[in-house]
Amino acid sequence: MTPRTQPRAAVRPQPVPFTAVRFTDAFWAPLQEVNRTRAIPANEKQCRATGRIDAFRLDWKPGMPNEPHIFWDSDVAKWIEAAAYSLATHPDPALDARLDEVIALIASAQQPDGYLNTHFTVVRPHERWKHFDDHELYCMGHMIEAGVAHHAATGKRSLLEVCIRIADCIDRVFGPGEGQLRGYCGHEEIELALVKLWRATGEARYLTLSRFMIDQRGTSPHYFDRLRASEPDAPVYKRHYVAGFTHFQAHQPVREQTRVVGHAVRATYLYCGMADVAAADGDSSLAKAGRTLWRHATRNLMYITGGIGSSHRNEGFTFDRDLPNEEAYCETCASVGMILWAQRMWHQEQDGAYIDVLERVLYNACIAGMSRDGEKFFYVNPLASLGQHHRQEWYGCSCCPPNISRLLASLGGYVYSAAPGRIDVHLYADSEASVQAGATTVRVRQTTRYPWDGSVTLRIDPATAGRFVLRLRRPGWCRAATVQVNGRSAKPRLVGGYLEIDREWRAGDRITLRLAMPIERVHADPRIRHDCGRVALMRGPVVYCLEGCDNGADLDALVLPPRARLAWRFRPGLLGGIGSISASARRELPFADAPYATQAPRTRAQRITAIPYFAWDNRKPGAMAVWIRGG
Amino acid sequence: MTPRTQPRAAVRPQPVPFTAVRFTDAFWAPLQEVNRTRAIPANEKQCRATGRIDAFRLDWKPGMPNEPHIFWDSDVAKWIEAAAYSLATHPDPALDARLDEVIALIASAQQPDGYLNTHFTVVRPHERWKHFDDHELYCMGHMIEAGVAHHAATGKRSLLEVCIRIADCIDRVFGPGEGQLRGYCGHEEIELALVKLWRATGEARYLTLSRFMIDQRGTSPHYFDRLRASEPDAPVYKRHYVAGFTHFQAHQPVREQTRVVGHAVRATYLYCGMADVAAADGDSSLAKAGRTLWRHATRNLMYITGGIGSSHRNEGFTFDRDLPNEEAYCETCASVGMILWAQRMWHQEQDGAYIDVLERVLYNACIAGMSRDGEKFFYVNPLASLGQHHRQEWYGCSCCPPNISRLLASLGGYVYSAAPGRIDVHLYADSEASVQAGATTVRVRQTTRYPWDGSVTLRIDPATAGRFVLRLRRPGWCRAATVQVNGRSAKPRLVGGYLEIDREWRAGDRITLRLAMPIERVHADPRIRHDCGRVALMRGPVVYCLEGCDNGADLDALVLPPRARLAWRFRPGLLGGIGSISASARRELPFADAPYATQAPRTRAQRITAIPYFAWDNRKPGAMAVWIRGG
Repeated sequence: MTPRTQPRAAVRPQPVPFTAVRFTDAFWAPLQEVNRTRAIPANEKQCRATGRIDAFRLDWKPGMPNEPHIFWDSDVAKWIEAAAYSLATHPDPALDARLDEVIALIASAQQPDGYLNTHFTVVRPHERWKHFDDHELYCMGHMIEAGVAHHAATGKRSLLEVCIRIADCIDRVFGPGEGQLRGYCGHEEIELALVKLWRATGEARYLTLSRFMIDQRGTSPHYFDRLRASEPDAPVYKRHYVAGFTHFQAHQPVREQTRVVGHAVRATYLYCGMADVAAADGDSSLAKAGRTLWRHATRNLMYITGGIGSSHRNEGFTFDRDLPNEEAYCETCASVGMILWAQRMWHQEQDGAYIDVLERVLYNACIAGMSRDGEKFFYVNPLASLGQHHRQEWYGCSCCPPNISRLLASLGGYVYSAAPGRIDVHLYADSEASVQAGATTVRVRQTTRYPWDGSVTLRIDPATAGRFVLRLRRPGWCRAATVQVNGRSAKPRLVGGYLEIDREWRAGDRITLRLAMPIERVHADPRIRHDCGRVALMRGPVVYCLEGCDNGADLDALVLPPRARLAWRFRPGLLGGIGSISASARRELPFADAPYATQAPRTRAQRITAIPYFAWDNRKPGAMAVWIRGG
Repeated sequence: MTPRTQPRAAVRPQPVPFTAVRFTDAFWAPLQEVNRTRAIPANEKQCRATGRIDAFRLDWKPGMPNEPHIFWDSDVAKWIEAAAYSLATHPDPALDARLDEVIALIASAQQPDGYLNTHFTVVRPHERWKHFDDHELYCMGHMIEAGVAHHAATGKRSLLEVCIRIADCIDRVFGPGEGQLRGYCGHEEIELALVKLWRATGEARYLTLSRFMIDQRGTSPHYFDRLRASEPDAPVYKRHYVAGFTHFQAHQPVREQTRVVGHAVRATYLYCGMADVAAADGDSSLAKAGRTLWRHATRNLMYITGGIGSSHRNEGFTFDRDLPNEEAYCETCASVGMILWAQRMWHQEQDGAYIDVLERVLYNACIAGMSRDGEKFFYVNPLASLGQHHRQEWYGCSCCPPNISRLLASLGGYVYSAAPGRIDVHLYADSEASVQAGATTVRVRQTTRYPWDGSVTLRIDPATAGRFVLRLRRPGWCRAATVQVNGRSAKPRLVGGYLEIDREWRAGDRITLRLAMPIERVHADPRIRHDCGRVALMRGPVVYCLEGCDNGADLDALVLPPRARLAWRFRPGLLGGIGSISASARRELPFADAPYATQAPRTRAQRITAIPYFAWDNRKPGAMAVWIRGG
C-alpha cells in the first residue's frame, strides 16, 4: 500500500480545487448539470417543505407540527454547502439571494454564546451537551463546512462568521481546561469541519480543538460513561453500550484502533478528521492508525461496488467478509464518506490504491445513490433486489440526498493534485483544467470517452515551458497500459501506481494513455460466502448488474457459463447513454410441482443484458443482481 | 394430492393410540427415553425455577420478581401434557404425585367462574378478554389439552374437571348469544383443544364453541377492530394492523383463506382446529380450505427440512419461496404444529403425501429442536449457520421445549391408523403394536433399522385369522419398493401412496417391504433463490448437513462435483449411532490479498462429511450448512 519509492517532489501535493476543473464529458457534465438544476433545488424544496429551514425561526412550541429533529440542521447545512459549490462554478443570483436569506435566518437563530442548534434551542433547551448520540456537534460540523464553502464560493463572510462563533462556543465548552468538557460527539464530523475552518481562517485554536477531540476519543475515564451516569435508562445506552461504544468508534483511543467497527458514516468521518489532523501536525502515529484502518476496511468490509456498512441493524459493520447482497445497507453517505477518506489517504500516502478505491466507490456505490433525473435518492444501496428497493424523493433522516449533491458539485476537486514540480492525474474524464504546480500554471485538456473507453489524450499547456513530473494514475483494474508522448511510445516509471513522465513540457504537448478495458469476470474471495460460485461483471471502473426489466424475474435462476462470450456496446439511447454487456446464458426452469426434486432443473438458453450498477432502478421496477451465478 | 380411488373401508380410520405402540428401535426408543428421563424433568425444573408453577399461588404483587407472563400457564400445561403421556407408558409414582400436587395448585388458582389465567388474575385483573394478542385462550387451550391427557393417562379427573370449568366459562363468555363476545384468540390453540375436550367428555357444546370461533374468525365487523377501538395506541395494533390481521390468520373468514400467512405456529394450530371441526361435522367447505392451505404451505413455504415460518420478524411467513437458510426461523413449535396438522390432514384425505411431509418434518426440523442429551433446545432451526446458533436450556418464551417433549412422548400415535377391515402403516420403526381394526385385534411387529435401512419386516398376528387390508405407506422419497408376503413377491396396488395388501391374515404372516434408500442429491426449485446452484443430501427421510467440526469453516467455499461418489455408512460410535455421508469435494482457497480478483479461486481436494441435520450442534460449536454448492 505504501509506495516503493517516494515521489520526487519534496512538498506534498494538494488537491487542485474543483473550481479549476471543468468537466466537458458526456458522463460527469450531465450528472453535474442534473445535480445543479434538479437535485440541489429538490434538496432546497424539501428543506423548506418539511420545516427544516423554518426551524431556524425558533418559533416551534410543543404540540406544533414539524418538531425540529436532532439532525435537521445538518440537512440544511449540506444543502447550503452543495448550493455554494454550485454557485462557485455557475453563478446564479437568485440562488445567491435565497442563500443570503436562509443564512440570515440561521444567524438569527444563533444564541448569544454562539451555540447553534434548532432542536436543542426549542425542543430540549436545558439539555445542551448532555447526549452523546444526539448529533449536536455533528450538526455544527456540517454548518461549519457550509460556512467555509459559502465563503469560498461567494467571498461573503455571513455564514462563516456564524461558524466562527459556533467554533468559539465549542472551544469554550470543550477542552482540557478546568470546567471544560473532555468530550466529543457520538457522530463524528466536527473534527474534519474544524480543520476546514482552521484552513479558512488560519485560527490555530480550531485545529487544536479538533486534535483534542480526536486524542480524547475512547480514552478513560470515558466521556460517554460520564454522560450515561446521568441517564442510565436512555435507549441509546441500552442499545449501544454493550458493544463498548464501538458504534461510535469510541471503544479505544483512536491510535489503538486497528479494526473498522460500528456505524459506517461515523467511521469514515472520523478517519477523515484523523487524516486531516495527521497531515496538519505531521502526526505519524495518527497517520499509521488511519493506514491500518483503511487496510482493514478495504480488504474485509467493502463490497465490489465500493459500498461499506453491510448491516441495517447498526447502519454499519458486522464482521469480516459479512457482505450480504440483498440485505446490504451500503448507505450513500458512507460512500461519500469513503471518497472523502480516500482522497485524504492518498494525500497522506500517495499510493494509487487509494484512488482505485475512490474510483470504485464513485462510479458504483456512490452515484447509484441518485436517480438519473436527479430527483430521487437511495439511502441504502443493495447489490441484489427482488424489486422492493426504490429511490425516494426524501427521507425522514435525509442525510444522503444533500450529501451526494455536495460531492457531485465539487467533484472536479478529485481529478488532480499538484505540488511544485509535479501534477498528479487521479481520474480520467473529458475536461479542462487549470493546474497550479508551484509557480507554474498548466492547462490540462483531457480528451476521452472514459469510463466507456480507456483511451485518454492529455494536452499539456504550461503557461511557460518548464520541467515537471506529470504523474498518470494507472488504475488497479487495468492489466495493460501504454503511453505515448507526442506520438512516440514512452516507458514511464510506475511509482505508487502512477506512471511518471518527467520532462520539459511545452505548450501543445500531447500524451496518449491507453488503458486496456476488456469486460472482466470478477470473483470474490471464497470466504465472502454470499458471492461464492458467482461472478460480477466489470469493465473499467464500472460494475454491471442484471435488471429484471432486461432479464426477467428470478435472476438467481440465470447461470453464466464460464466460456460465454461477453459483448459490450455503448447504447446512446439508454438512460442518457450507458454501456451494456450481453451474453448467452442459461435459465433454470421452475419445477412443475414439488419445491424439491432429485432431478436438476431443466434449463433453456437466454440472452442476458447487464447495465451499469449505478444506473439500476431508473426504468421499470424489478429485480436486480450484481453477482451472477456461474463463471 | 387427493387419492385416485378412495380406500375401501367405509369407516374413516383413526390413529392407533400411542399407548398401543412401543418403539424397540435404536432411533426413537433412546430418544423417547432421553425425553422421559431428561427433557421432561428439565421442563419441570425450569417451570419451577422460573416461577411458572408458583405463579398459580396467585400471591404475586407488583414490585415482586417473577411477574407471571401472559404465556407462562401454557408452558406448565405443556409440561403436564408431556408428563402425562410419559406416565401412560412408564408409570412413575413420584411424577404422578408431583403432578397431583401441581394440579391441586392449578385448581386452587381457578376463579369461581371457571376463569384460569395467572397473568390476568394477578397482573392485570381488570383486563380479561380485552386483548386479542395476549394468549388468554391459548393458555386455556393448552391447559385443556393437558387435562385431557392427564385424564387419559391416569384416569384421574382432577385436571379434567378444572378444564371443564374453564371451557364452560369460555362458553358463557363467547358465542352468538346476546351479551356474548363474538370473538376468538389472536393465538389459535383453543379450537383444537375444545375438540379434544368434546371427545373426552362427549359434551357437544365444546365442539360447537370451537366451530363458532373458527366460523367467526376474520368475519366483519371484525372482533379485533372492536378490541382495538378501546386501545388504539397499543403496540400490537400498530405492529400488526397494517397487515389486516394476517399475523393471526384473521384477515378473512377461514373458508376464504387460500394462502398461508402470518405467524407459523398460530397458523398450524388453527388449521388443526379446522381439520378437527371439519372431520367432526363432515364440513366439506372447511376441509377444502384446509386442503388449499396445505397445498400452499408445502409447495411454497416449506424448507427441505420440513421447517416452516422463514422470518424472525413475524415468527412466520413472508412470500412464496422466500426461504433463506442462515436467517431461517423455523420455530420448533411450528414443526410440531406441522406434524399435528399433517396427521389430521391424512385422516381427512388419506393421501400418503401428508405423511411424507409429516415424516420430513419429524426426522429433520422437529427433532433437531432437542439436543441428543435431552437437555437443550432450539427455538429457531436455521439451515445454515456460521456457528452462532446453539440450543439453550430454556427461553424467556419457552414454548418449544415442552412442545417437542409432548410430541416425542406421544410419538407412537403417529405410526398406525386403523378402521374396521383396514390397518394403515404410516411410519416405519422397529416396534411392537397392538392394533384394533374394528373387532379385530392385530399385533404388528416391525423389524427394521429404519431410517438407516429401507428394509422392513412386519409380522402380523391377528388374534383370530381374518381378512383385512394392510396398507403400507410407500414414502414419497422412495423411487423403488418391493413387497414380499410370506417370502413370495407381491404386487400390491398403490392407492393414495399406500401399498394395499388385501388378504386373509393368519398369525405369523410376514411381509417384507424393501424401500430403496440410496443417497439422493436434492435440488430446489430455481425460484428458491437461496438454494440455487446447490444440492442437499438426503437418504431416506433424513436430510444431511455439513458441520464445521468435520469440514472446517467457510462451508460455502466447498463445492461438491456433480459426479462425486457419495458414500454412506452407519457410525455406531457417533452421537449414539447415526449415518454419515462422505465424498470427495473441492475447497476454494482464500485470496491472498484483495477481496476481489479476475482469477477464479484456486481449489484443493477435500474429503467432506455430512451428518444428519437433526444431529447438528451436538459436538463442537461451528458452522453448518444443509445446501452444498455444486451438484
